[in-house]
Amino acid sequence: MTLTLDHCRALDAQDPLAPLRGHFQLPPGVIYLDGNSLGVLPKATAARVADVVTREWGTDLIKSWNSAGWFDLPQRLGDQLAPLVGAGPGELVCTDSTSINLFKVLSAALNIARSQGPARRRIVSERSNFPTDLYIAEGLARERGLTLDLVEPEGITAALGPDVAVLMLTHVNYRTGAMHDMAALTAAAHAHGVLCVWDLAHSAGAVPVDLRGADADFAIGCGYKYLNGGPGAPAFVWAHPRHASAGWQPLSGWWGHAAPFAFTPDYQPAPGITRYLCGTQPIISLSALQCGLDVFSAAEALGGMAALRTKSLALTDLFIALVEQRCAGHGLGLVTPRAHAQRGSQVCLMREAQAGDPRELGTGAYAIVQALIARGVIGDFRKGDAPDSASAAPMPDILRFGFTPLYVGFEDVWHAVEHLRQVLASGEWQRPEFNRSHAVT
Amino acid sequence: MTLTLDHCRALDAQDPLAPLRGHFQLPPGVIYLDGNSLGVLPKATAARVADVVTREWGTDLIKSWNSAGWFDLPQRLGDQLAPLVGAGPGELVCTDSTSINLFKVLSAALNIARSQGPARRRIVSERSNFPTDLYIAEGLARERGLTLDLVEPEGITAALGPDVAVLMLTHVNYRTGAMHDMAALTAAAHAHGVLCVWDLAHSAGAVPVDLRGADADFAIGCGYKYLNGGPGAPAFVWAHPRHASAGWQPLSGWWGHAAPFAFTPDYQPAPGITRYLCGTQPIISLSALQCGLDVFSAAEALGGMAALRTKSLALTDLFIALVEQRCAGHGLGLVTPRAHAQRGSQVCLMREAQAGDPRELGTGAYAIVQALIARGVIGDFRKGDAPDSASAAPMPDILRFGFTPLYVGFEDVWHAVEHLRQVLASGEWQRPEFNRSHAVT
Repeated sequence: MTLTLDHCRALDAQDPLAPLRGHFQLPPGVIYLDGNSLGVLPKATAARVADVVTREWGTDLIKSWNSAGWFDLPQRLGDQLAPLVGAGPGELVCTDSTSINLFKVLSAALNIARSQGPARRRIVSERSNFPTDLYIAEGLARERGLTLDLVEPEGITAALGPDVAVLMLTHVNYRTGAMHDMAALTAAAHAHGVLCVWDLAHSAGAVPVDLRGADADFAIGCGYKYLNGGPGAPAFVWAHPRHASAGWQPLSGWWGHAAPFAFTPDYQPAPGITRYLCGTQPIISLSALQCGLDVFSAAEALGGMAALRTKSLALTDLFIALVEQRCAGHGLGLVTPRAHAQRGSQVCLMREAQAGDPRELGTGAYAIVQALIARGVIGDFRKGDAPDSASAAPMPDILRFGFTPLYVGFEDVWHAVEHLRQVLASGEWQRPEFNRSHAVT
Repeated sequence: MTLTLDHCRALDAQDPLAPLRGHFQLPPGVIYLDGNSLGVLPKATAARVADVVTREWGTDLIKSWNSAGWFDLPQRLGDQLAPLVGAGPGELVCTDSTSINLFKVLSAALNIARSQGPARRRIVSERSNFPTDLYIAEGLARERGLTLDLVEPEGITAALGPDVAVLMLTHVNYRTGAMHDMAALTAAAHAHGVLCVWDLAHSAGAVPVDLRGADADFAIGCGYKYLNGGPGAPAFVWAHPRHASAGWQPLSGWWGHAAPFAFTPDYQPAPGITRYLCGTQPIISLSALQCGLDVFSAAEALGGMAALRTKSLALTDLFIALVEQRCAGHGLGLVTPRAHAQRGSQVCLMREAQAGDPRELGTGAYAIVQALIARGVIGDFRKGDAPDSASAAPMPDILRFGFTPLYVGFEDVWHAVEHLRQVLASGEWQRPEFNRSHAVT
C-alpha cells in the first residue's frame, strides 16, 4: 500500500492519545523528533516553577521544607513514576543524576556480590552501552580491582558465569534504539547468580517496563528525556525490595539517614529506597519534573503505557515504511530492529555514501541531520566508530529520530519524511553550512 | 554605652552596602535571620528562571545546550564564584550537591594519600562537623578499611600525624558559628604530610576565604545558603591546581570526560577541575544560582567580601551587645566565639532553664525560636546532645541566628532582639503552641 498524507491524517483523527499533545508547549514550525534527548516543555511547568520560586521559596522560605513538601519530594515523585516502570510504591526515588544513581546501585550490587565470596570479579556490559554508564563502571572496577568486560549484544549471555558479579545493561540502546528482553536477560543472569542493573534512560515513559515482573535487581533512569522533566532534570533510582535495605550505598548523605534531623555524627541508613538519597536536592528542577510526570497521570485515563506503546510502534512503523517508500535510492538503511519486541521508541538510520557525494561529507549523516534541523525537523546525529576502531562490529554514523507518543502525531511523521526526501533529492544537505566537522550535542 | 533604636538606624544610614538589600525579594513583615539555612530570593531570579523554562527549554530545546551555554554553565558559574573563596579562574565548578562533591574530593585526597604508601589509614575530623560530612567520610572509611577519628576543636592538631591521610573540616561550624583558622590548620596538616579538605558551606559569601592563600588542597561548599541560589541549589567543588589533574575522582561521568561527545567507551578525564563533573546538571536550578552570584558581582563595586565581612561583624557584634543589654536575666548565654577571627556570620545562643520554667520545655530554646518565628523573626533551633551523650563536651540546645550582610540591616537586629526580649519577659514562649517535641528542619 502506498502511504499518503491523508492516511496519516486519518491515523491522527483516530488517535485516542491525540489530546495529550495539548499538554505541551511545542514551538511553532517544529517537528520535534528528539524527545529521547530532551523532552518538550509541558504547558503546566512554567507556572509551577514560578510558584516554587516566588511563593514557596520567596515568601515561605525555610517553612517550605515542610509546608511545600520539599523534603519528601524525591519519594512523592518516585511513587508517581513507579507504575511507569513496574515498581511499587515506596520503591523508587527521584534524585541526583543518572550517572550518580548508577554509581550508587552498581556499588550496592558489587557489595552484595562481594558478600557472597571473592569469586565474582567481573562486571559485564555492552560495548555500545551509553558511555557514561561504562565510565562509572570503569571507575568502580578500577577502585575495586575488578574487570569490566564489554561484549556485543549477541555475546551477553555467553559472557555470564560464576565469576561475574553484575550484568549492567541499558534497556533501550541510545544509539540504535534496540531494546533488550529484560525478563529473559535478567533470568539468564540470575541463573548464574549474577545481579542485574538496568538503565532505563531511553525506556521510562517510552516503552512499558516491568521491573518487578522481570525480577530485576536495580534500575536507574533519566528525568529529562521521555519524562519531560526539563534540562538535566533529576534522575531516578530503584532497588528491588529484597536489596533496598541490604547494606549501604557509598553516597551516604544525610537525606538517606534514618533520622536526618537528629544530626547524630554516625550514619544510620533509612529503611528502603530512601537510603539511596544523598544530599539536598535541587528543588526547582525537581518540582519541574513533577509536571512531566503529571502528563503520564493524565495519560492513564486514555490507556496509559499500553496505549502509548501501541502508538509509539505505529509511529515508528510508519516512519520506517515512509522512508523506505519515499527516500529509496539515497543510500539510507535501517539500524533499529524491525521486530516490535526489539524496538524502543526511536528509529535510527545510517547512510552509505553514494557515487557523486562530496567526499568531505563522509556518510552525509551529519549534514543531513543539520539540513533537517534547518527545516525545523529536529532529530540528532550520533557519530559512528572510527574506521580504525578495534570493535568487532563498528557502529556507523547515525541519524537518530525519537518518537514521543505523547506529542508526536502521524502527520508529523509524514512531513518529517517529506523533508528528508527533499533534503536528499535536492542535494540540499551538501550545502556548505551543513558541513561541520564536530558533532551536535 | 546603652544602645538605642536610633543608633541602629544611624548605622543603616551610614551602611555603604545598604543598596544591596534592594536586590532581594524579602517577604513583608519578616526579619530573616536564617540565610545560613536557605538564602533569600534575589529579585532577578524569577525572570531568569522563567526565561530558562519558556525560551531556552520551551522554544530552543536541545539547541540551548550550546546556544544558551547550558553545557559549560558549571564552569562559568564556578569562575564567577571563585573570587569569593580565593580561587582562580578555571579552578572551581558549580555542580551536584555538597555531599556528593565531598565524596569526590575526599576520595581523590584518599587516593593521593594512598599513592604515598600504606601508612596513612586515618581520616581526622571534628565531632561537631556537619553530620552529612561525617556520614560521607564514614562511608568511605568503611569501604576502604580506614578509620574516621572525630575530635574536639582543640584536639585537632594533636590528632595529626604520619598515619593520617586527610584532615576534613568545616570552616565555619554550622551549629556554633565558630570559625577555624584555615591557613594555620592547613599548615599544621601539611607539616605532617596530611591533606586538607575544607567544607565552605557556611563560609562562601559569608566570610572572606582565601583557599590559594591558605594553600588548601580541596574545598566544597553550598549554593543555597549565603549564595542565595535557591532551595537545594547545586553546590561547588574546588581542587588546588596541583591536585586537580592528578588521578580520577570515582564519580567518573561523561561531563567530566575529556571529550564527552566523542562517546568513546573508555573514560579519559578532562584536564583540571572539569573532571569533578559527573552527570547532566539540573539546568533550571543551576541557572537560578547565577542570580545569587550576580548580587556578589554587584557588591564588588561597594567593597566586595571585605566590606561584607565588616558589616557582618558589626551586625553580629550589635546582636550580641543588644542581647546582653536587653535580655539579661533570662538565662541566655553566648555560644559563638566573641573574637572576630573565630566568628562566622551567625550568632548562636544557648539557654539555661530558669526556676519557674515549665519542666517539659527543657532549655526553652525550641519554644523561644518558635515564638520568634510566630512574630516574623526567623532563626532556627538546633538540638543539643542528649544528656547521656558520650561526648566529652556535649553540645547544648541552640538558638541560631544568621546575619547575611547583603540584606540584613542594623534596625532588623534591634527589632529581632526586642522581639526576643518580649518573648522572654512576657513568658509568651511558654504557650502550648510553641511546645512541640520535634525539631524544625
